[in-house]
Amino acid sequence: MKLKFPMVAIVLEVAMIILFGYFVEYETEQINLQQPNTTNSTKVDRFLELHSLFQDVHVMIFVGFGFLMTFLKNYGFSSVGINLLIAALGLQWGTFMWGIVHNHGQKIHIGIKNMINGDLSTATVLISFGAVLGKISPTQMLAMTILEIAAFVGNEYLVGEIFEASDIGASMTIHAFGAYFGLAVAGILYQPSLRKGHEMEKSAYHSDLFAMIGTLFLWMFWPSFNSVIAETGEKQYMAIVNTYFSLVACVLTAYAFSSLVEKRGRLDMVHIQNATLAGGVAVGTCADMKIHPYGSMIIGSIAGIVSVLGFKFLTPFFTTKLRIHDTCGVHNLHGLPGVVGGLASIVAIALGASKTSTMAMQAAALGSSIGTAVVGGLITGT
Amino acid sequence: MKLKFPMVAIVLEVAMIILFGYFVEYETEQINLQQPNTTNSTKVDRFLELHSLFQDVHVMIFVGFGFLMTFLKNYGFSSVGINLLIAALGLQWGTFMWGIVHNHGQKIHIGIKNMINGDLSTATVLISFGAVLGKISPTQMLAMTILEIAAFVGNEYLVGEIFEASDIGASMTIHAFGAYFGLAVAGILYQPSLRKGHEMEKSAYHSDLFAMIGTLFLWMFWPSFNSVIAETGEKQYMAIVNTYFSLVACVLTAYAFSSLVEKRGRLDMVHIQNATLAGGVAVGTCADMKIHPYGSMIIGSIAGIVSVLGFKFLTPFFTTKLRIHDTCGVHNLHGLPGVVGGLASIVAIALGASKTSTMAMQAAALGSSIGTAVVGGLITGT
Amino acid sequence: MKLKFPMVAIVLEVAMIILFGYFVEYETEQINLQQPNTTNSTKVDRFLELHSLFQDVHVMIFVGFGFLMTFLKNYGFSSVGINLLIAALGLQWGTFMWGIVHNHGQKIHIGIKNMINGDLSTATVLISFGAVLGKISPTQMLAMTILEIAAFVGNEYLVGEIFEASDIGASMTIHAFGAYFGLAVAGILYQPSLRKGHEMEKSAYHSDLFAMIGTLFLWMFWPSFNSVIAETGEKQYMAIVNTYFSLVACVLTAYAFSSLVEKRGRLDMVHIQNATLAGGVAVGTCADMKIHPYGSMIIGSIAGIVSVLGFKFLTPFFTTKLRIHDTCGVHNLHGLPGVVGGLASIVAIALGASKTSTMAMQAAALGSSIGTAVVGGLITGT
Repeated sequence: MKLKFPMVAIVLEVAMIILFGYFVEYETEQINLQQPNTTNSTKVDRFLELHSLFQDVHVMIFVGFGFLMTFLKNYGFSSVGINLLIAALGLQWGTFMWGIVHNHGQKIHIGIKNMINGDLSTATVLISFGAVLGKISPTQMLAMTILEIAAFVGNEYLVGEIFEASDIGASMTIHAFGAYFGLAVAGILYQPSLRKGHEMEKSAYHSDLFAMIGTLFLWMFWPSFNSVIAETGEKQYMAIVNTYFSLVACVLTAYAFSSLVEKRGRLDMVHIQNATLAGGVAVGTCADMKIHPYGSMIIGSIAGIVSVLGFKFLTPFFTTKLRIHDTCGVHNLHGLPGVVGGLASIVAIALGASKTSTMAMQAAALGSSIGTAVVGGLITGT
Repeated sequence: MKLKFPMVAIVLEVAMIILFGYFVEYETEQINLQQPNTTNSTKVDRFLELHSLFQDVHVMIFVGFGFLMTFLKNYGFSSVGINLLIAALGLQWGTFMWGIVHNHGQKIHIGIKNMINGDLSTATVLISFGAVLGKISPTQMLAMTILEIAAFVGNEYLVGEIFEASDIGASMTIHAFGAYFGLAVAGILYQPSLRKGHEMEKSAYHSDLFAMIGTLFLWMFWPSFNSVIAETGEKQYMAIVNTYFSLVACVLTAYAFSSLVEKRGRLDMVHIQNATLAGGVAVGTCADMKIHPYGSMIIGSIAGIVSVLGFKFLTPFFTTKLRIHDTCGVHNLHGLPGVVGGLASIVAIALGASKTSTMAMQAAALGSSIGTAVVGGLITGT
Repeated sequence: MKLKFPMVAIVLEVAMIILFGYFVEYETEQINLQQPNTTNSTKVDRFLELHSLFQDVHVMIFVGFGFLMTFLKNYGFSSVGINLLIAALGLQWGTFMWGIVHNHGQKIHIGIKNMINGDLSTATVLISFGAVLGKISPTQMLAMTILEIAAFVGNEYLVGEIFEASDIGASMTIHAFGAYFGLAVAGILYQPSLRKGHEMEKSAYHSDLFAMIGTLFLWMFWPSFNSVIAETGEKQYMAIVNTYFSLVACVLTAYAFSSLVEKRGRLDMVHIQNATLAGGVAVGTCADMKIHPYGSMIIGSIAGIVSVLGFKFLTPFFTTKLRIHDTCGVHNLHGLPGVVGGLASIVAIALGASKTSTMAMQAAALGSSIGTAVVGGLITGT
């Protein structure tokens, strides 16, 4: 029993080394038949050019997600520690899976895009982790990482390559997917004792400050998250600007509604830590569309409101009636705002903000993301 | 009463959305009559080029200022939380106000320079916040944000466009301005009970460590703050190098004088958290002038000494005699070093380090910054 | 006695200002006789290009090293505070010493490479600081900074210019050097009372979370550390990619072995904070060689294992038998993995991964680094 975790971790790492030995090479060793003019130095330039946005995303994964979950006073170290473990495995497996699917089984040449997609795959698992924190063991988390990333890459391929839908900031394929996957697993693992809430779930003053470290690094770098895989140039510029304005607007409405729904108008720390980020999630899908700064601000404002109301009314309902206990409230930070993001993209396309995708394909992408997530989560939980 | 804060926040956000809807557009949609050769791709390149310095400043605003004020053990969460709220409003209002004044009422085309100036306007309010922390409510902070940024943009226009003074790192227009504005408000809000200092003002061991997170991120990224709006090329290079060497020198003298003025030679945590940053403030105005690395080190050394002496002798004097209670000691970190910065620029110009401005105009800029701040603060406080 | 620390600090700062006044100039004032085609704007472009990697390293020095040592609950503030003091002095002295040695006594023209080498010199002292934390006074630390950086620059010149050995990520010249220097000093300062371990050495729950801030910023930015002085282009790309994959693999084996050697399979927080970084150290020397991603993963996996075993078995042995008390266990994070890094480079060269150095020269570099460190440390300790 004691040997289970070390053995699983070692076997997985050995497997990764073997897979990388067979399938993964430097980008600079690639003989590029399709684009004969892309020299090595072009590739390396592109690598370093995107490296600074990549670093921002990297900080979000490790410091952002890691510390956001430290608000539980008894799980602070576990959150950060297991977050690092999941991410380290997820980056390897995500890099491999994403590469092998998008290269149709050919050798993978590691470039910045691969590494970014490794980070993004991992983000999905970390979102789900927020729903099951405290319910599963590290060994189970490793298994969930492997299964969820496989499902994620499959759905992401379907959405991007088959539906050709737009989802630049991955509101649907990462946020909604990760949230509903986690909720499905949490539903399977439900224990009646969770209904009342218990001692372990409380936060403490210092743990709330640690969580703000996570919140702020996520908040500040979210524009990089939504723009890192955008087309260079105008699209990347718009993705940064739109996300920035969605986030600032979201803060105002999240604070306003937090004060509105709480007794005596006090601000709730959980809302400040989480709902202020909903604007980044919700603007994701249409971040690179011409929605104008005020359009982003409207999306962000709605996301802040929806998220606070979710924490206040939906989470208790989920726990007591649906028998789904969502430890960190990921449904309110990633699930609902992810759905808002998908819907916003449909409205944006209807209003002519983008012609790269159709309303029907966006709807299909949203449905596919939630559907795959729920089915994948139920299978994984069992 | 309970509805006051939510209503104010919502009304402000709606107002921002309306203003942005009418006045703010993407930079890429600008038809540029003055500079017909500036294509969209040039603008976008410039955006991404400055984006990494902008991100550093962004981290200073949210993590730097936010955590610096967590040293008060009972205001830790408030500091970070209200900091985020003020900044989110300030970024929108600052972007709008700065844009409208500098474009003479024309449409604003959002570029990196606009966003940087949004961050800088906000910094001013956050400095003032340090003087009034614990004295005013979130609703009052929102009102102060609106008023102070209007005054800031007015003074900044006067200093930059009318006086044509140099103030690249904004020692005068941000640091001195923010400090004296905050002190004026604090003077109005003075209550005799503050004279003795009270329980709420104490720090605790962990709160001091949280504050160091703020200190370090401010310290590390200050060269970006002082160089982000500098002319690309040699001037930007000098602004980075000068700030860097001012900061390292400042640490040594701040530690030395902290030990010197404290009982039994112990180091005071407040000095370490604050006075080590004074070098960044004081070198600001002449950061892009040819003051040579050793010149920067002299400025930084003086700033560290002035700041420690301010904390030790001036702050108690302000509280007991002048009836101004400066919660975080912003006068010692921003006020005095800001004045040192203004004076340093006069000396630097006298020594021939720059020809872009004159000694008289620098003096006028310093006077105008302090004057506008005090008048603005007194009006706001009332 | 009380005046000792302030006097030493002030004298050192005055000395630095004088040295910089005589020897240090802006890079843009350099008349470049060797490379007449390098214009000022080329130099400045290069400066800004490397600035973002430099900032990452800067964060590692101040936040990474500073917070990593906060795990001791009674030394939290000291660690961060003295870390800042040492670094501020080290940056000035390192910039000067490195410049004067590499320019053969000529004037130093401050460029990004100088500033990077200032940071790297400082890193060496901060590593040694981890071994002597709690044993020496701030004044002694200032003296050690001066002496150690002189020894470091001497050894680095020997390794790089005389042996012409490869050590791009400085596994040998920084990590092994810093660790063995610190251990030699700690050996001299040994007191029998340290044998039992004492109250002051304990960590607390929150202090462990603060330490994770240090761990994560080191972990995330290590690829920048190993690549910042690499040749631009393919070599820099490989240094980033190799370090990245070494680190992710290291996390898995460190967690696995931590659970394996601890009672009831629990994870040890010290291992999570430290051993997860060993992969960054160990891959350093051959980070820019063609070792392939899977090669990096093998190096990282070994480093994680070696580091955990070092903490579990070697540290107690050092304390009780060798009479060397290593406060933070730097031998396990920097010493052993640094040696692994040197050995890995010999194997890599044997396998044909690089032709820029020979096996003999790599062995000489490793020997020289450890030898100089031990001798330097013994002299400094006395």
